[in-house]
Amino acid sequence: MNKELKLSALCMGMILATPAFAVDEPISPIEPAKEINLAQAELGKKLYFDPRLSKSGFISCNSCHNLSMGGTDNLKTSIGDKWQRGPINAPTVLNSSLNLAQFCDGRAADLKEQAGGPIANPGEMGFTHQLAVDLLQSIPGYVKEFKLVFGEDNITIDEVTQAIAEFEKTLVTPNSDFDQWLLGDKEALSADALAGYKLFKESGCVACHNGPAVGGNSFQKMGVVEPYQAKSPAEGLSAVTGKDADRFMFKVPTLRNVEMTYPYFHDGEAETLTEAVDVMGRLQLGKKFSDAENAQIVAFLKSLTGDQPSFQLPILPPSVDNTPQPTPFD
Amino acid sequence: MNKELKLSALCMGMILATPAFAVDEPISPIEPAKEINLAQAELGKKLYFDPRLSKSGFISCNSCHNLSMGGTDNLKTSIGDKWQRGPINAPTVLNSSLNLAQFCDGRAADLKEQAGGPIANPGEMGFTHQLAVDLLQSIPGYVKEFKLVFGEDNITIDEVTQAIAEFEKTLVTPNSDFDQWLLGDKEALSADALAGYKLFKESGCVACHNGPAVGGNSFQKMGVVEPYQAKSPAEGLSAVTGKDADRFMFKVPTLRNVEMTYPYFHDGEAETLTEAVDVMGRLQLGKKFSDAENAQIVAFLKSLTGDQPSFQLPILPPSVDNTPQPTPFD
Repeated sequence: MNKELKLSALCMGMILATPAFAVDEPISPIEPAKEINLAQAELGKKLYFDPRLSKSGFISCNSCHNLSMGGTDNLKTSIGDKWQRGPINAPTVLNSSLNLAQFCDGRAADLKEQAGGPIANPGEMGFTHQLAVDLLQSIPGYVKEFKLVFGEDNITIDEVTQAIAEFEKTLVTPNSDFDQWLLGDKEALSADALAGYKLFKESGCVACHNGPAVGGNSFQKMGVVEPYQAKSPAEGLSAVTGKDADRFMFKVPTLRNVEMTYPYFHDGEAETLTEAVDVMGRLQLGKKFSDAENAQIVAFLKSLTGDQPSFQLPILPPSVDNTPQPTPFD
Repeated sequence: MNKELKLSALCMGMILATPAFAVDEPISPIEPAKEINLAQAELGKKLYFDPRLSKSGFISCNSCHNLSMGGTDNLKTSIGDKWQRGPINAPTVLNSSLNLAQFCDGRAADLKEQAGGPIANPGEMGFTHQLAVDLLQSIPGYVKEFKLVFGEDNITIDEVTQAIAEFEKTLVTPNSDFDQWLLGDKEALSADALAGYKLFKESGCVACHNGPAVGGNSFQKMGVVEPYQAKSPAEGLSAVTGKDADRFMFKVPTLRNVEMTYPYFHDGEAETLTEAVDVMGRLQLGKKFSDAENAQIVAFLKSLTGDQPSFQLPILPPSVDNTPQPTPFD
C-alpha cells in the first residue's frame, strides 16, 4: 500500500471511529432532526397551532407549549379550559423526542401517545378525540391534506397524533454554546460556564442530568436527601405503576434551554435558576452550593440554550358552514 | 419631436396616468405594505406574540387576532383575562391599516392608539401600561432591541404601541383572486363569483363596502331598513360621540378575507357567510336574495381571500430573575 492510500485509509478510519465530539463527556450534542416525514410534520404543525382542537376553540398545543417561549407557557402551572388551574408545570416540548417517556410521570410511552392526552383532558383542552376528528373531517382543507399525507378519506385520531408527534420531532435545539464546546470550539464557553460544568459533574448533578438532553432519560425520586414539600398533588410514577415505591419518582427534566423554561420543578415553585440549583443541591445531593458556585452552575446551564425552532407560522384551513362551533362558555 | 420621442412620451404618459387596474370599479386592489420601518416591525412582531403583556402571562395580541386564522379568534365574542366573555366579536387585524379608525366604534384614531387598548382593558389582557413597560424594561433582550430601534434606554408605552402598529401595517393580504381579476386576469374569477360581484354592486352592498379594504372606510347604521336585534350591548359610535344619532352606527367591517373571519357582525351572531349576506340584504337594503343570488355573492366574497401574512414565528427574549411574575389566578 502506498503512502497516499495508507493516509487515506487512516483518515477514513478516524472519521468512522471517532465521533466529532468529546467521548469522555456525560453530555453529548443535540443532533439535528433526521428522518422526518415532512408532509406529516407540516400537517402536524398546523394541528399543533389549531385551537379548534379544544372545546373552547381558544387553546392549542402552542398555548401551553409556546414555541416562542422555549416550548413552555412560563407559568407555574398551566391554564386550561375555562381558566382552570392545572396541577402541574408544563414541561417543554423542545427536544422531547429524546425523553424515555412523556409527561412528568411517564404515563405516555412516546410523543404520539402524549399528543392525544391534553386534547381529551377536561382540565386542559376539554375536548374528546371523537369531537376533534369530527371537527377536522368537516374542514375541506384538512380532509385534503390528511388524504395527501395518509392516503385515507377518513381522518383518525391516530393520524392526528402521528402528525403532531412528527412535527414535535423537528423541535430539537442544536448548536448551543455548550454543544459548540463539546464539538471542539474551546472558546465557546466562558470561564464561569466551564467552571460550572466542572461543578455540575463533580457534585453529582450529572448522575441524573446526562445524555444529549441533559436529562429526560430516567425517573428519579424528587427529594433524595431531604423530602421536597411540593405545592402540587402530583406523586409521579406511582400514579402509573401503582407502586408505593414510585411515589415522587418523576421523569428527570431536560436541562436543554432551561434558561427559557422557567419556572422550575413539576410544581413550578422555583422561579429562578439560582433557586432551582440551590434546592436541587440540598435535596438531591445534600450539598449547599456557595453563591459563587451557584452562579457558575447557572452560567453553565445558560450555555445549554440552543437554536430555537425556526419556521413560518402556519395558516390554518378555515372552518366551513357545517363545522361544529366552539363552545367556550357552555 | 421625432416619432420615437413621441412614442416614448406617450408611453410614459400612459404609465403615469393609467393605473394597472380597472378604474371604473368601486373596489381597488390591496397594495403590498410600503415604507415599513423593518426594525420597528420586527420588534412589534415579538410584542404582538408576547403574552407577558397580559396580567396572566397567557394572552397576547395574537390570542384574539390570531394570524393563523385570518387575524381573528373565530369566536362569537372573545375570551379575556380569567375567561371573561367579551362584549364584542374581535375584528380582523388583517388590512386594518386601511381602516378610517380602529375598534368597531372607532374609538381609536389609528393602530398605534388601538394597540394600547386591550393591554389595559380589565376584560381583555387585564394589565396596565405601567406594568407592561416595567415588565419589558426588566428583560435585557427587549431593552437592547428597544434601544437599537428607538435609541433610548427607557422603554415607553408609546414605543410599544408604535412598534406593534408598525408590525400590523405589514399585515396586508394582496393577490386575492378578485384582485387578480381587477388587475386584468379575466380568468381569475369563476362565473359565479363574477355574477356575485355584479349583484354586490347592483344591489347596493358596494355603497358601504368599497375601496381597497371593501369596507373599513365609513361608519354606517346597522339596521337601516329593519332594526338589528343585537346580542351585544355595544351601541357603536354613540359611545364615542355621545350623540343619540350615532347609536348603532358601526365602522363598516372590511370584507377582505371574510371567508376566514367567521362568525360575523359585531356580536358574532351570524355563523356563515350565507346568513350574513341574507341578514345584510334584508336589514340594510330591504332585499331578500334568492338562494342562487346568495350563493353567487358568497362566491364573490370568497374571492377576496388574499395571501396571508407569511413570517417566522418570533422567539421572545426570556424573562430574568427580577422580571415580575404573571398572576393568572390572583
